[in-house]
Amino acid sequence: MSSQIYTSALAQTASEFDVALADLLASQRDDVPRIWDAMRYASLAGGKRLRPFLVLTCAEVCGGSRESALRVAAAVEMMHTYSLVHDDLPAMDDDDMRRGQPTLHRKFDEATAILAGDALLTLAFEVLADPATHHDGQTRAELVLGLARAVGARGMAGGQMLDLEAEIRPVDDENQVMRLESMKTGALFAWSCEAGAVVAGAGEKERTKLRAFGAEFGMAFQITDDILDETGNPDEAGKAVGKDSERGKATLVSLGGLDGARDAALDHAQKAVENLDLFGEKADLLRAAATQLIDRRV
Amino acid sequence: MSSQIYTSALAQTASEFDVALADLLASQRDDVPRIWDAMRYASLAGGKRLRPFLVLTCAEVCGGSRESALRVAAAVEMMHTYSLVHDDLPAMDDDDMRRGQPTLHRKFDEATAILAGDALLTLAFEVLADPATHHDGQTRAELVLGLARAVGARGMAGGQMLDLEAEIRPVDDENQVMRLESMKTGALFAWSCEAGAVVAGAGEKERTKLRAFGAEFGMAFQITDDILDETGNPDEAGKAVGKDSERGKATLVSLGGLDGARDAALDHAQKAVENLDLFGEKADLLRAAATQLIDRRV
Repeated sequence: MSSQIYTSALAQTASEFDVALADLLASQRDDVPRIWDAMRYASLAGGKRLRPFLVLTCAEVCGGSRESALRVAAAVEMMHTYSLVHDDLPAMDDDDMRRGQPTLHRKFDEATAILAGDALLTLAFEVLADPATHHDGQTRAELVLGLARAVGARGMAGGQMLDLEAEIRPVDDENQVMRLESMKTGALFAWSCEAGAVVAGAGEKERTKLRAFGAEFGMAFQITDDILDETGNPDEAGKAVGKDSERGKATLVSLGGLDGARDAALDHAQKAVENLDLFGEKADLLRAAATQLIDRRV
Repeated sequence: MSSQIYTSALAQTASEFDVALADLLASQRDDVPRIWDAMRYASLAGGKRLRPFLVLTCAEVCGGSRESALRVAAAVEMMHTYSLVHDDLPAMDDDDMRRGQPTLHRKFDEATAILAGDALLTLAFEVLADPATHHDGQTRAELVLGLARAVGARGMAGGQMLDLEAEIRPVDDENQVMRLESMKTGALFAWSCEAGAVVAGAGEKERTKLRAFGAEFGMAFQITDDILDETGNPDEAGKAVGKDSERGKATLVSLGGLDGARDAALDHAQKAVENLDLFGEKADLLRAAATQLIDRRV
């Protein structure tokens, strides 16, 4: 598959997804305007929508309903967005720009950013648990459970805690860096892919393979992100770059050099693709996504 | 029922509950210690455990399993605790003491308090969605949905947003105050009672009645809390008092005076009790809780 077909599919999915997301974030009559404005400000600022793309493509590979998958994709993206909003706070990474616009706490204020993040986190679960997402309660509960595990203290939130601790007691071991990144980033990528299979009613084998694809994809993504932080320019990254080394943060780049990091990213992308054999041609877009990740970013 | 029987039942339930909660917050081998330490610090500092008491008592009234109800009660209390942790942050209410000990961000730091709050919020949903809470997926999804609605932008988080906005543009209308308090506090009380019915598999009529009891109970609770803020001492309240008037925050006390607020609290407590006729003697503990609320606190 040409990388152009993938790029165009990613953009098309993002447009379709943005409509569905905006719909879920539309205010109702009795709403408190400020918190919804803040939730929309953080959520509807564009972005590649890579996680939603993975949810939707994996659901499609498994033959699931588009409408259901769009709601699951929205829940995953809300979770990702809440994590960016809270990570950007002054007490955390203290970032001023995100996706080419002032961060939420800079545009509104810190209290609003904390609350809007909390509300997005909560809304993600509300969307999944709603009967509109899937007729079967068991499936809805499974979607909630998987997402909660991916983003909680044993996943994304725990990874962010490790990341903050590493600023005080630097990590100097590749295994520790990989653990941190697999919790902070990998878990939600793995779940994005598995959730697509779950909402499509796929069997255990498909779930396991897509989950493994997502985990490896997530690691490749994170490592290329670290490389971009070292080599990229802020326009391309859509955020400040060079912050890792400025903070003395250990990444595969700082520990193994650029070449070592590139090798590792390539290795993870290859492992990701190896999990797709089961799906034949249907998974070509996922293969293209993994390849493109390496080609474009590094 | 004598108020002594109620007080002793509340204390006994709290002890039983604390064991179940500690169990859900126990670290596992691979955990990030700091975030779990913080989650436990905020969660296991005592407290009356009034919301868990309501979940457990409502489940008992409807004949539900204790084990299931304890998990639902834990989820509700985690949600309450996360809201306290985030509300106490410097960017929000900026409180130093809570439940007789330094607030989480004073004991640890702000970043840890934000993350531990996020992780408690997430864990609440994880606990509910876990098959250990109920064999039926539909029930688990319903528990998640109800809790998410109670604490999200249309419930607790939205109420806190209104509360912060009221510090800048003071509210001077009793209806607005009641709306704010019913979102910020009432919604979780209403859900605590309804969730007890849901996990016990009660019918629609029981659910509706217990929900209405919880909503009225919550309003009576909040108004007596506001009265205590005006008249109480910090030891009794377990936190700083006099903060509402110091901040110029409108409450039923500031708008209608102490007598007006006492009348309103009594009115809500009576309305709460009127919803319990359906349950006969089985609901005596709930009646005692509503009565005690007025007697003891005001």
